Order: sequence, then C-alpha cells, then structure tokens
Amino acid sequence: MKMDKPYLLITNDDGIAAPGIHALVQELLKIAEVVVVAPDSEKSAVGHAITLSDPIRVTCFKKANHWVGHAVSGTPSDCVKIAVGALLDRRPDMVVSGINLGSNAGINVIYSGTVSAATEGTILGIPSIAVSLATYTEPIFEPAARFASHMVRIVLSKGLPDGTLLNINVPNLPESEIKGVRITRQGMANFAETFDKRVDPRNRVYYWMNGIKEELQADDDVDDEAIKNGIISITPVKYDLTNYNFIPELNNWLPEIVKK
Amino acid sequence: MKMDKPYLLITNDDGIAAPGIHALVQELLKIAEVVVVAPDSEKSAVGHAITLSDPIRVTCFKKANHWVGHAVSGTPSDCVKIAVGALLDRRPDMVVSGINLGSNAGINVIYSGTVSAATEGTILGIPSIAVSLATYTEPIFEPAARFASHMVRIVLSKGLPDGTLLNINVPNLPESEIKGVRITRQGMANFAETFDKRVDPRNRVYYWMNGIKEELQADDDVDDEAIKNGIISITPVKYDLTNYNFIPELNNWLPEIVKK
Repeated sequence: MKMDKPYLLITNDDGIAAPGIHALVQELLKIAEVVVVAPDSEKSAVGHAITLSDPIRVTCFKKANHWVGHAVSGTPSDCVKIAVGALLDRRPDMVVSGINLGSNAGINVIYSGTVSAATEGTILGIPSIAVSLATYTEPIFEPAARFASHMVRIVLSKGLPDGTLLNINVPNLPESEIKGVRITRQGMANFAETFDKRVDPRNRVYYWMNGIKEELQADDDVDDEAIKNGIISITPVKYDLTNYNFIPELNNWLPEIVKK
Repeated sequence: MKMDKPYLLITNDDGIAAPGIHALVQELLKIAEVVVVAPDSEKSAVGHAITLSDPIRVTCFKKANHWVGHAVSGTPSDCVKIAVGALLDRRPDMVVSGINLGSNAGINVIYSGTVSAATEGTILGIPSIAVSLATYTEPIFEPAARFASHMVRIVLSKGLPDGTLLNINVPNLPESEIKGVRITRQGMANFAETFDKRVDPRNRVYYWMNGIKEELQADDDVDDEAIKNGIISITPVKYDLTNYNFIPELNNWLPEIVKK
C-alpha cells in the first residue's frame, strides 16, 4: 500500500544535535513522514569517507525526552548506507541532507559531508538533495527549510536523472530579502590554504590548516556568485567523475603509451 | 634554474609504511627526485576528507635507518596540501599517488583516498596521477611501478587539461601477461552493502559495513571491465561535479520553483 505522505530520510554532517537539521525536520514534518539518521558528532569536511575498519554504533538520540532519530558513530555517507541497509524498514522516497551551517559551493563541494550524504542516496537510486545555508554566524534557518520543503515536493513530482542530485545553497537572509533562484554550475576557483606552524608544550611541532580562501569566479552562472548576490543557488551534481571531453585526446596518446 | 630531473611528490592512502609506495619510490628514483609525504597510518576509504578540527603532526619516517619521507597525521588530501603549503621548499612537477593495494574503479573512485590525493594535486594546478593495483593479496607491484614511471614521463611532456587527473588501475599480473592499455570511463554499477549486526561483550549493538559487492558493467570502455580482462585502465577524472546536461531541464523547472 502506498503511504499518503512521502517518507524522507534526513541526515547532515554537522551532527544530529545541530540546529540546522532540526529546522529542516520541523518544516518537513508538515508534508512528510521523516526519519533522522545522522552522525553523533560534527563530521564536517569528511568528504565521501566511509567507515570500513571500525565498528559502527547506532544510538537513540533524544531532545527534551522526545525521540529525534538514530545517532551514528560514522560519517554522513555511513548514515545513509546504514539507514537504507539496516535501520529502516522501508525504502525512503527521498534523502534530504542539511541544513548545513556554511555554504557548500565551488571546490568545497568535493569536501562536503552534506553533499556526500546526498550522493550516497543517489548511488542507492533515491532522489536526493543537499541544502546549505551560506553563513557561519547568526543563521536564519527557516527560509532555507521552507525552500527545501518546496524542492522536495517538486523533486517528488518530477524525479531526477540517474546519478544526479541537487546541491542547494541558500543565502542567510529573511525570506523577503532573497532575490530569486538560479540554476548554477560548480565554481572552479582555486584555494589558498595556509598552515599555521606551532610548537606544543612538549616542544613538538604541529600545524593547523587554515583559511580556505577562495578567489571567487564572478560569472553569473557560478554557485558562489549567486549566493553572494542573495540568490538561492541550485547546482545539479553527479558522481560520474569521468572527463569525457579528454578521452579522444588520451586515445591519441595510446600509441606512445603502449610503445614502452 | 630548472633542475635536470623532475621533482615528484609521492603519496598514498595505505600509509607511508605500505609496500606499494616503496615500490613506486624505488622505480621513480631512477628518473626523478622524489619526496614522500604520506599518512602515518592506513587511510583507506577516507574519500576527500581534510583535517580542519585537529592539529596535524608531521614526523620523519625512517626504514632501516634511511629517511623515507614525512609521515602526516592526516588524510591523503591533507598530505598534498601540507606538502605544497608548508613542507616542500619548491613546487613539485607532479603528484603521484599510490601504488594502492586494491583497484580504485567504478563508484569506488569517489571513496578513494588514493584518487583524492591526486585530485588535490590537480586543484593546486600540479599534473597528478593515481595508480592502483587490482588485488588485495599477493601483489606484484613492479609492473605497476614501471608503468607509473612511463606515464609520469608522458604526462611531464604532454601535460594534462586543467582540473583533470589520470586514474590508473593495473591488473595484478607479471608484465608479460598484461594484455594492453585502454582509455576507459568510470563504471557506474551500483553497490550492495551489507551490515553485519553484532552484540559486544557489554551487550551493546554494533555493525560492520561489509562486502561492497558490485554488479560490474560489462561494457568494454568501463574501467572495471578492462582490469578484469588483464588490461591496464586509464580514466581521465575531473573534480567539476556539475551535471551540465541537466541544466537546461532544471531551467525549465524554474517557473515552478520560483512560484511558491
């Protein structure tokens, strides 16, 4: 029997106690049955890590005595895999990952646990979206949560192509100040990390990785540029990493490659 | 002054003590100056994780009293970032990641620390290749090391397109039994993970993620299929995850997205 309400798997990379996931759950409960399976602690910048060498623990996470969801001692990718593979009694209609504190745009996308959880849903054949809020301070989650709910309804009705998720970034503005929605591409602007070299009390050297500074591309169709201008950015993201355009040229290299 | 020999940064995800990286270094020393900056322990399936919340330590790793390289308390991505950003006194001409024990093909590519290290080099604008050996048992590293060295010379002379690395998988065969080289695409066959549920001595439940089984695609141009047939696979991999083909259709959705 088809349930009347859609069944949504909610996860994130900021951890199950993060306010962003609760704002998302509160909004999505208006239109759907939801189940939360999220990391038991912050797992930012874990990329597409999965846990193969350690046991994975799952505990019940409660807030003010109300059951919130399953807290997983693993990465966002682990959460989606173990939810679908072991914890849920039926297949979710969608995976919604977020709301992340901080944008996931440009090259950051490849380090993002938020996006990797949605990628995992996509790999499992479940339509998936990732939602991030472009701020680290004074977040206003509600507009992003309402937009996520709106996009869930659209994706449920239209579907997504195989192997593709939507990566959504929302400016941190009241709803009335958001200037629109734009379909974008992932920015490719380079990073400049710095390493802060220090000495600990036992005279051992250590480093902090710091200041992922971006020289943003100013092209209108780039994700970061939309966000900077107060526009919601939607980028279709796929997990086929093949550079098809370079294959003909590589085939031209083959005679030299084979002749050793 | 341009050095006569190329200067290569070598890393991996199996850790600085793994035999695969030593086979690679031994071979590349014949044609290049090399510096090894690799994780201090195994970091398989860490994907594109980077270490922002913990200090990163760097120690000297020696083998039989000979200095091998810098051992880093982080991920393969961290290794490339800290090598270029803090440890090396000049920019390497290439990044070579491997030789990984086990293939990195199909969907596995997105979980691969080996590939992510090469991606990191690519992001930094350094031509990069990842090299994996398609076995977990009784590895024969020498043919893969020699092929890696051959490809380093070709890439140094021809260059690679912006944002693209080469993901190389070598069958575990003596050189005389390798059947050729093929330019391939990343296979997209789905996974089927299982979760082995157990109870620990204190009666707490835990899970092992197990058996990433693949239903391989049998298409000739797929990475896994080449490897299975004893052929070296070279896939051009890029880190722009945008699904450009879906952008026009998403733009058709915009009126419905904007009308809330």
